[in-house]
Amino acid sequence: MSITLYTSETSIGMVSHIALEESGLEYELIAMDFSSQQQSSQEYLRINPKARVPSLVAPQGVITETPAILTYLAQLSPESAIGLPSDLFIQAQIQSFNAYLCSTVHVAHAHKQRGKRWVDNEVALKAMTENVPITMALCFDMIEHSMLQGPWVHGDMFSISDPYLYRISSWAAADGVNIDDYPTIKAHRSAMAARSSVQTVEAFFRSVS
Amino acid sequence: MSITLYTSETSIGMVSHIALEESGLEYELIAMDFSSQQQSSQEYLRINPKARVPSLVAPQGVITETPAILTYLAQLSPESAIGLPSDLFIQAQIQSFNAYLCSTVHVAHAHKQRGKRWVDNEVALKAMTENVPITMALCFDMIEHSMLQGPWVHGDMFSISDPYLYRISSWAAADGVNIDDYPTIKAHRSAMAARSSVQTVEAFFRSVS
Repeated sequence: MSITLYTSETSIGMVSHIALEESGLEYELIAMDFSSQQQSSQEYLRINPKARVPSLVAPQGVITETPAILTYLAQLSPESAIGLPSDLFIQAQIQSFNAYLCSTVHVAHAHKQRGKRWVDNEVALKAMTENVPITMALCFDMIEHSMLQGPWVHGDMFSISDPYLYRISSWAAADGVNIDDYPTIKAHRSAMAARSSVQTVEAFFRSVS
Repeated sequence: MSITLYTSETSIGMVSHIALEESGLEYELIAMDFSSQQQSSQEYLRINPKARVPSLVAPQGVITETPAILTYLAQLSPESAIGLPSDLFIQAQIQSFNAYLCSTVHVAHAHKQRGKRWVDNEVALKAMTENVPITMALCFDMIEHSMLQGPWVHGDMFSISDPYLYRISSWAAADGVNIDDYPTIKAHRSAMAARSSVQTVEAFFRSVS
């Protein structure tokens, strides 16, 4: 079975990259060059017309959107660390957490450097950027106090939610949030950084950059 | 098995409500009153600290976020119209479509009346609102030309993506998008409106409003 992940060093694609490492599946990685707008090339738009990463090219076709890629990889590697639990309610908690990251936290973050997705007005873009520390702190509060069970997102069981949180929480400092205010998230970052999957992914981008 | 859905007439909760009707599962419905900010009451915050609808109260606990609720309901009713296909790649296409609606299309729409989620500045809010017809048209273009297979989202097979698109596409006119420019989406709306699940849900809110 042939799997190829299109990703980039600075993007949310890292989540799927870590998940692939955790899955034990064989895969090929294609690192996109955002500085040359490679994600908007005609060649890439045939893979993903949304001009975003990640895209996972599976034998049957292309899968986009991080929550969908993560679930697919988990289903392909049921015995790996990211295999889904059999309990449907716990599966739903995983999907709920991932949906919150994708629709609320990632979106709050994107208002800093990707504000032109929603507005084309310098005053508005500046106001959006200035507000990011507030909205991101609200998201981190919610994760710290109402979601993250510890040590992993869903308690003792590692899951696809963990690489997702690891990537999102890496934005804290640049988004004006002090990670020391969130001890459970901070401990989660340390636990993730110690995993060989994360070390492999981070070493890969050091080697190509 | 006891299931309760917290929803409201004007919210994305309608998607889960239609899915419940399609599932054949028994459920109780609680219609929230947004005009009195019931979603921010202490009582409701114990159910969903995000102060949003929908929330699905299942025997094991609460599930939030539309994509997670939809998948859970589909798994609970595998023989119903919303049962998931066995093919994992097709399941991934369903999750990908739902993630796009939740993280991109719903978010674009929310910049009209929910802009204070991201900014607290009148100039910025006005600029956001004015841009909504442009961003929503881009989303409808993407759905019409690259996603919606017809007659249902994923072709001949009805799925949880269909009530989700039906709700999102109902915003077209108010968001400044002419549905006549999108014949496949328009036909999808007609096909959905003919289903008894949709008629039951729409009749319910006519009866309580």
